Amino acid sequence: MNRVCALTGAEFPLFAFSHCRDVVVAVSKAGGFGVLGATRFPPEQLEEELAWIDAHVGGAPYGVDVIVPETIDPSVAGMADNAARAAAIDPKYAAFAADLLGRHGIDADRTVAPLRERMGITPENGLALMEVAFRHPIRLIANALGIAPPAMIVEARRRGVPVAALVGAKEHAIRQAEAGVDIIVAQGGEAGGHCGEVSTLVLIPEVVRALRRAGHDAPVLAAGGIMTGGQMAGMMAAGADGAWTGSVWLATPESETSEAFRDRMVAARSRDTVRSRSRTGKPARQLRTAWHDAWDAPEGPGTLPMPLMGMVSEPAFARIERAAEAGNREARDLVSYFVGQGVGLVDDVRPARAVVQAFREEYVEAVQRLAGSLG
Amino acid sequence: MNRVCALTGAEFPLFAFSHCRDVVVAVSKAGGFGVLGATRFPPEQLEEELAWIDAHVGGAPYGVDVIVPETIDPSVAGMADNAARAAAIDPKYAAFAADLLGRHGIDADRTVAPLRERMGITPENGLALMEVAFRHPIRLIANALGIAPPAMIVEARRRGVPVAALVGAKEHAIRQAEAGVDIIVAQGGEAGGHCGEVSTLVLIPEVVRALRRAGHDAPVLAAGGIMTGGQMAGMMAAGADGAWTGSVWLATPESETSEAFRDRMVAARSRDTVRSRSRTGKPARQLRTAWHDAWDAPEGPGTLPMPLMGMVSEPAFARIERAAEAGNREARDLVSYFVGQGVGLVDDVRPARAVVQAFREEYVEAVQRLAGSLG
Repeated sequence: MNRVCALTGAEFPLFAFSHCRDVVVAVSKAGGFGVLGATRFPPEQLEEELAWIDAHVGGAPYGVDVIVPETIDPSVAGMADNAARAAAIDPKYAAFAADLLGRHGIDADRTVAPLRERMGITPENGLALMEVAFRHPIRLIANALGIAPPAMIVEARRRGVPVAALVGAKEHAIRQAEAGVDIIVAQGGEAGGHCGEVSTLVLIPEVVRALRRAGHDAPVLAAGGIMTGGQMAGMMAAGADGAWTGSVWLATPESETSEAFRDRMVAARSRDTVRSRSRTGKPARQLRTAWHDAWDAPEGPGTLPMPLMGMVSEPAFARIERAAEAGNREARDLVSYFVGQGVGLVDDVRPARAVVQAFREEYVEAVQRLAGSLG
Repeated sequence: MNRVCALTGAEFPLFAFSHCRDVVVAVSKAGGFGVLGATRFPPEQLEEELAWIDAHVGGAPYGVDVIVPETIDPSVAGMADNAARAAAIDPKYAAFAADLLGRHGIDADRTVAPLRERMGITPENGLALMEVAFRHPIRLIANALGIAPPAMIVEARRRGVPVAALVGAKEHAIRQAEAGVDIIVAQGGEAGGHCGEVSTLVLIPEVVRALRRAGHDAPVLAAGGIMTGGQMAGMMAAGADGAWTGSVWLATPESETSEAFRDRMVAARSRDTVRSRSRTGKPARQLRTAWHDAWDAPEGPGTLPMPLMGMVSEPAFARIERAAEAGNREARDLVSYFVGQGVGLVDDVRPARAVVQAFREEYVEAVQRLAGSLG
């Protein structure tokens, strides 16, 4: 039996990261494994989301992904709360964002409002979300942006829940395995969201080999660029035990994405993304727009550290979405979101259940075709 | 039968690009398909190299790769010869290179000497090399840096030789197929040498799908990052008909690389490469050194267009190699060459024949493992 399936209860080793509970439920019920990205919820809302999943998933296994950043920028570390963080942001950043939006016919605030408390990517918030997750029958807890914290490993082990962690380099994979992580998600630079620079095709065998040599037998999921069952089979041929996917679920009607963004996904080529610090403060791959070009230009103001950058960017992107929805054509050109190079493989918007089914069929077709090549 | 094997006579669809005739012969004799990179030879030397291959390859099929750049920088287009090109280079560039090498204890010229005539990457030189190649029993002619020129397609068709072309984007693949190219080499951004930005894993299904939709059935070879038979099987699962490889042959004793560079390959991680204009004038992936950091820095002098940049960089890299060989430790840190992210998968230096054998075994092992997953 496939090792990640044995660990998690998945029927088919296709892991679907999504911020949308409907996607999580649809994927898990179709035999894949849905993982709810929890970072954008305050703890009480995560509680509601997971209760909804429990009520709808029909006992199929699912997981939760939190972000407990291992390191935070020293300039931010001493700030007590989101009011202090908002106050610390030089007004030039919000002004730069407002001017940029203004040039596209979108009104925007020139000041930064504090986030609600317990929101934003910080270690405290990540751990609070983790505590909520453990109150539910999850079959996986995943962490990104550094080594899974001891509190997560200890509590997960006590409850018999496997821990997964995202890495972009072999050294990080070994450190995670040494910390007790059960499943390594090796994510290539073509992935949407926070990512490194090494491609999935190279990273998978490099991570698998490095883990084995260091005496670790943790299974490895391949992440970054995977939109089809043929690619999934391909990464398993290269040494992975399954696939971890994100972008492909953004092109489902269940997803949290707007219609304007889904239209852009269908139109986009693989070259239309960029790895930029201009949304979260850390390098994250997104659909490229004039926003990214402006912030990343040499004459731009530079970017703020996490979580301050998001306090400037997220209100701006919310304005952009609203203006696009209201019919502003220029605003549509600024609509963006975290998405990988695999966006070039999106041809249409399909229900999550149909995506899982397509992966399963493509996987079988690819494996049979390869098997035929042995003659 | 595999379609690229049927077209080229290869036994196993593993294509090996190398500047070294010994690699070409070893690979073709072992059942793969060697392709000699001809660009660094003047025509009379290419004639010698191919005569040597004909005498040693035992009738096994092989090919030749030339570079006939489709576009050349307008600032360079009017220059009549290499003396004019050398004279056109602002002295600040050679001075920058000499100062950089000087800081590492390496003496270097502060002036640019003209290349020998008929050397350098220009359309005329590429076509002259092509004419030499067609005097030999080649089973493939390949072209990079743009659409294969009509002269190549017409002459190849007359002789029954398949034409291959390298592309980094789906639009380019369609243009090549429309021009009459028989085999598309889709090369991802992790590849060594000139490359685009989209990863191999995404590019392969994107190119295959775009070609089919445009009504072309040209087979596709996957290039970029492929160092093992498992990865080769993986890219064939994702839709490719075979693999085109380069970096893996640099770590063979037959290769043109220096011992100093091969030592660096074994030590390097996948993150130790960079895509930079600082060697040829076009973006090309290389082992990253202080050379690349200095030229690519915002305060650097910028880079020259092709072929001028190479007239500054290649003499400098030759000096670096000589100094490293003479025992200069600092020079060893500057030793670099065109290599892909797959350098992180190089563990040792092995004969080319053994590399082919490993690919074949790993391919079979990967396919059998996948076939087993269908239960």
